[in-house]
Amino acid sequence: MATDRVASLDDPQLRAFAPLVYVAWSDFDLDADERTHVLSTIAAQPWLTPQARAVIAAWTDAAAPPSADELARLRSLIERVSTTSSSRARAWQTRIASGIARDPATEAVAQGLARDLGMASPDAPPVEPSPASADATLVDALAEALDGAHVEERTRVRQFLATPRRAYDLPVPEQRAEVRSWLHELAATGLGALAFPGVTSTSDLAAFTAVFEELGHGDLSLLVKVGVQLGLYGGAIWALGSERHRTRLAAVAACEELGCFAMSEAGHGSNVAALETVLRYDAATREIEVHTPGESARKEWIGGAAHDARWAVVFGQLEVAGEQHGVHAVLVPIRTPEGGPLPGVRTGDSGHKLGLNGVDNGRLWFEHVRVPAANLLDRFASIDADGHYTSPIASPDRRFFTMLGTLIGGRISVGAGAVSAARTAIAIAIRYAHARRQFGPDGERRLIDYPTHQRRLLPHLAETVVNRIAFATLRARHSEAFSRVDPSEAMPDMRELEAEAAALKILGSRHAIAAVQEAREACGGQGYLSVNRIPELRADVDIFTTFEGDNVVLAQLVGKALLGAHRKQFAAGGTLAVVRAVGRRIATAVIEKNPIQSRRSDSSHLRDRGFQLAALRYREDHLVQTCAMRIKKRLDQGADGETAILAVQEHVVAIAEAFAERRTAEWFAAAEGTFPPAAREVLARLGDLCLLSRLERRAAWFLEADYFEAAKTRAIRKEVERLLAEVVPHAREVVEAFRIPDGCLAAPIAFFDPAHPLYGSSR
Amino acid sequence: MATDRVASLDDPQLRAFAPLVYVAWSDFDLDADERTHVLSTIAAQPWLTPQARAVIAAWTDAAAPPSADELARLRSLIERVSTTSSSRARAWQTRIASGIARDPATEAVAQGLARDLGMASPDAPPVEPSPASADATLVDALAEALDGAHVEERTRVRQFLATPRRAYDLPVPEQRAEVRSWLHELAATGLGALAFPGVTSTSDLAAFTAVFEELGHGDLSLLVKVGVQLGLYGGAIWALGSERHRTRLAAVAACEELGCFAMSEAGHGSNVAALETVLRYDAATREIEVHTPGESARKEWIGGAAHDARWAVVFGQLEVAGEQHGVHAVLVPIRTPEGGPLPGVRTGDSGHKLGLNGVDNGRLWFEHVRVPAANLLDRFASIDADGHYTSPIASPDRRFFTMLGTLIGGRISVGAGAVSAARTAIAIAIRYAHARRQFGPDGERRLIDYPTHQRRLLPHLAETVVNRIAFATLRARHSEAFSRVDPSEAMPDMRELEAEAAALKILGSRHAIAAVQEAREACGGQGYLSVNRIPELRADVDIFTTFEGDNVVLAQLVGKALLGAHRKQFAAGGTLAVVRAVGRRIATAVIEKNPIQSRRSDSSHLRDRGFQLAALRYREDHLVQTCAMRIKKRLDQGADGETAILAVQEHVVAIAEAFAERRTAEWFAAAEGTFPPAAREVLARLGDLCLLSRLERRAAWFLEADYFEAAKTRAIRKEVERLLAEVVPHAREVVEAFRIPDGCLAAPIAFFDPAHPLYGSSR
Repeated sequence: MATDRVASLDDPQLRAFAPLVYVAWSDFDLDADERTHVLSTIAAQPWLTPQARAVIAAWTDAAAPPSADELARLRSLIERVSTTSSSRARAWQTRIASGIARDPATEAVAQGLARDLGMASPDAPPVEPSPASADATLVDALAEALDGAHVEERTRVRQFLATPRRAYDLPVPEQRAEVRSWLHELAATGLGALAFPGVTSTSDLAAFTAVFEELGHGDLSLLVKVGVQLGLYGGAIWALGSERHRTRLAAVAACEELGCFAMSEAGHGSNVAALETVLRYDAATREIEVHTPGESARKEWIGGAAHDARWAVVFGQLEVAGEQHGVHAVLVPIRTPEGGPLPGVRTGDSGHKLGLNGVDNGRLWFEHVRVPAANLLDRFASIDADGHYTSPIASPDRRFFTMLGTLIGGRISVGAGAVSAARTAIAIAIRYAHARRQFGPDGERRLIDYPTHQRRLLPHLAETVVNRIAFATLRARHSEAFSRVDPSEAMPDMRELEAEAAALKILGSRHAIAAVQEAREACGGQGYLSVNRIPELRADVDIFTTFEGDNVVLAQLVGKALLGAHRKQFAAGGTLAVVRAVGRRIATAVIEKNPIQSRRSDSSHLRDRGFQLAALRYREDHLVQTCAMRIKKRLDQGADGETAILAVQEHVVAIAEAFAERRTAEWFAAAEGTFPPAAREVLARLGDLCLLSRLERRAAWFLEADYFEAAKTRAIRKEVERLLAEVVPHAREVVEAFRIPDGCLAAPIAFFDPAHPLYGSSR
Repeated sequence: MATDRVASLDDPQLRAFAPLVYVAWSDFDLDADERTHVLSTIAAQPWLTPQARAVIAAWTDAAAPPSADELARLRSLIERVSTTSSSRARAWQTRIASGIARDPATEAVAQGLARDLGMASPDAPPVEPSPASADATLVDALAEALDGAHVEERTRVRQFLATPRRAYDLPVPEQRAEVRSWLHELAATGLGALAFPGVTSTSDLAAFTAVFEELGHGDLSLLVKVGVQLGLYGGAIWALGSERHRTRLAAVAACEELGCFAMSEAGHGSNVAALETVLRYDAATREIEVHTPGESARKEWIGGAAHDARWAVVFGQLEVAGEQHGVHAVLVPIRTPEGGPLPGVRTGDSGHKLGLNGVDNGRLWFEHVRVPAANLLDRFASIDADGHYTSPIASPDRRFFTMLGTLIGGRISVGAGAVSAARTAIAIAIRYAHARRQFGPDGERRLIDYPTHQRRLLPHLAETVVNRIAFATLRARHSEAFSRVDPSEAMPDMRELEAEAAALKILGSRHAIAAVQEAREACGGQGYLSVNRIPELRADVDIFTTFEGDNVVLAQLVGKALLGAHRKQFAAGGTLAVVRAVGRRIATAVIEKNPIQSRRSDSSHLRDRGFQLAALRYREDHLVQTCAMRIKKRLDQGADGETAILAVQEHVVAIAEAFAERRTAEWFAAAEGTFPPAAREVLARLGDLCLLSRLERRAAWFLEADYFEAAKTRAIRKEVERLLAEVVPHAREVVEAFRIPDGCLAAPIAFFDPAHPLYGSSR
């Protein structure tokens, strides 16, 4: 014992073991055999130098327990090492220590130690019961933050939705009739006029998308019917038509003229450029002949086509004097005012569906149907009196993408509507969880008081809040992009907005399915009963991933946008350009992948928006870069660009999701300063819960990428648990701040029924 | 350059960098600056000894590139290190190397190197198109393996199911009537007699569960009606009744007497011991009075109670001469033969549901309804002529669990039925994917030829195959456990079987939801149309997680069984006993967590059943141990056992799932030797695909537990991709081997329609 055992431990090979040596000798109840085992396991590490082995041996002597002074100095060593040692060395320490302290017993001991030393987070605190009464000030402040700029329009929608309108357990024709009558009721409120700024409204487009978003709390068949009538049919006339077409928009807004949007074809669900429908200009009669050349060209899944629509905006390939000009849209009457088919038009019915049976999806075939050339929606391309095709946009590609820009609004609306549906289901489940009591071993508790139940519902609640805020930014960007345009000019390049709209539609629709499903299960058998509304939300929302652009196809669009820059780089520099990036990348990696960051696990760090955003951004960037590498490899092997991207389809989907997760998080973070002060704290915690839950869900990826250590993913899990306990007392307020009309919750389980012995007081 | 640079690298601190040094100097296109950057980054590691730094400096000299001999020896060094170095040192190497080679470019280079050195897997091979014709021999062999012992009974069910029986888009009363008529059609085939071995059948119980499983390919409302009538109502009479009750089983099997199983109560969905319904024996009249004391005691969700059932097996608390004897069951007539209510019985209707609308779920209330004492199902407890309560089982607890043993069959059947539903949906989606062609950049391809599409469907296909085989073992164990019993004896303790049944029900029902959902999405809009059957499967199967024991509650049951041993240990030895385990655990950890295992990534290792099972078992054991620690901590803090387990509910659910994943994998592995030789290879690959997909899904856990290195989770992903390419050519044969009658696939998209231009030849 001549040497200083503590000082000897301060060796690069041995520092890692200091905590274990401390555990072995401090008062953690290890007996002599166990202590010997721990220390001799360390000494058995084959790569130790003989000197290092001797140091450990000196610590193993049962006859020489460390003095109080030695233990205190050992503790100081551990503290110093944990705060000052090189990042790499620290990573080793954890790794080795955790490798030896693998079993639950030593792990618990080590965790206790780590907590004492501030190296890891303590357990989440025990759950406090929710307060007994709602905080009206908080509810108002939260509602203000969530409603944003269009509270007046939202209030009008809420008044409309206050009347319960439900349609289930009805034959399809009756359900469709019911939803159609609601569409007319809505039109009667005048809200439809907001859809066409500059024509039937002086508001901006964001006012209408707020209306649409709010309608997402109601029946989703009605929402889709509204989307078809005002967003797609009316929206196409508004965006693609010229003044003479816009005169009909008042009738469209009032639902006096019902139309449909005939874009998708059976063989070309999402590939618009490949549409087969023929639009042939006949100079002799100044007519356009609309024709379905084959079965794969039939218009498919068209909302309104089975029954209600009298008119269709038909997309097809325009041919003028034998020349092809690509996809254009033309207004075609398809039914008489009484509903009978017009000559040459054949309609079909898509039939009964999993959900949305209030929407009359159908098929359309055209057999040499002739309409006046004036029916061509000609804002971006027209046929002049001499029969010449002219367009203010010279590039056919750019013309095509400009026209497709009209679809952005639909995607934004569908995504926002999906978020609203998720919000409704989660609101029902959270209200039920506050009212329903279950007897447990420690007496009667509300469902919401069970940590498992909080785990199920609250991260989804947080996700709907973050997405709601994010969609507000997206809606504003969309509105602004459209408002900048003089009708006589071409629209600006909106590919960035397009990528954002596509990514958020993917995120919103996928999350909606997950959230409604969780709400279904969290309400048990009650969630399976149609009277409680969740079943229809579940069935209706399922197709949101597929319509308005299949999510997989939309992901390609997002991926291509993000990969653009990389592809250019490849094209210019070839392999060498890529390898040349190595040096720069290594420098960045050493700074960015700072293990102090990858291991930090304190609350203030984990709740730092900067950390959360950096992690989401890192994932996105890394996915884009590795995807670019994979594509490049295939290009090198001779594949063309499309094929190369198809081969990494899954990777591209991951990119789109990562992009959406980062983008929504950034927009939420940017909005936080604008929230009413009274709401900031609760919204900040919901933001933490949402973003950390996202990181938690991607833990495997971050671990594999070495961006997080295992200690950090564990700390994130604990932090999520801690956030659950902080958020749960305000869960009811958040739900109330959604201001969802009772008529939309519609579920007996969402309301307190004092006569019912199964329910306690709702708060 | 006096020293031997290669030999110098063979130093514990430096070996890790040998691959990077190799990369820096071999012909991977790094220029001098980049090389300097790589090497100086290594040299900058702060924990390196001065000597080690000098060695790296010697490799940095641009004027002294290594000779061919040096490079060859360096390569040898890397090879030797990678096969002989200590596990810990190897782990470091990867970690450090991967830390530096973080960017895609060097990563790609490093991967190429690693592949050359046999350290990681190459990319999955390109997809080969499926062969052009089905292999009938393979189909037959696969079918033989999948059908197992009851091919005759299955064939009879298939004949019954060959007639399409579908009911959707119907008002609830009509749908119920339709399903009721099918129930009678099925009864007419005589298959119902198989439900009651020893009474109406000479087969064993496994024959009936095979029938039930096969019926799972048909309409699921019919399946549930069959389960209620034969499994629950008849099953309770068969298992809990005595000879005088069993005489009615012939009429039950023939569906001449329709009954229901009135166990669940509104306030006690899954907690059977807490049922409130009163069964009071009246000695004066030798009657039992059945009474619903309050609203939480109403019988809830009872299949058949709303309309069809004439009889009910009612569970409640038996009271004899003022003494409570716990839960017993009694036969109660509830409706006249014509369907009118009997005096004192009130019935309610659960109403429209998300799915299963062919099942008439309802509620029951009893107002002092009197039935003869002979109606008590008295196999395990009777009331003698003198009014004394007697039971062959002295312990009330054991009596209760023995009676509950009758529920095992229901759970096994529901789990197996869920797997069948998953199989149907996946079969439809895979057939569609073989027929539907899509135009892509490289021409027309079938959906199934897209890797993303394979990724979506094939792991689910594999999961249904493994689960089908596993359920065969479970069904056999169940049948055997029941057949060992002499009717005059008490049943053996079946808690192990109960845990298995509960765990597999959880696994089967959760997977069914995931698989049907994936099938829905993989078929796009077509999967949303009711005509294609997937929508009704999706809606029907959703409640399988909740009924026959809510999955969360069942998980508690599994968890408690597995935690039993640990709890005893705590009770006996206290804290010290746990800490005493440390020494043993460390020894095990050092052997088990062998980093050679945690990094091995070659196919033969990853496809080794031993490796796959060990990983699944490790996860289960670890979850059980850490859960035990957490419970112990709460017990130490003064919580009672139930509260402590409730607090770790989520952990317990994870245990149940891990147990099910391991158990099914073991049973599948044990069965492999019995498969017909012609089927073994394909089934082995499906087993690999299923088990590796399970490990892949749990990658975050394994990484966090340090059981896998990142290189291994990557290798597992690659291996899954490779397996997809190997399985896809046989996917159609596997689907055909399910022998699902065309009447059950029922979907236009599942069949080849040569007149339809969207479909190519189906093979």
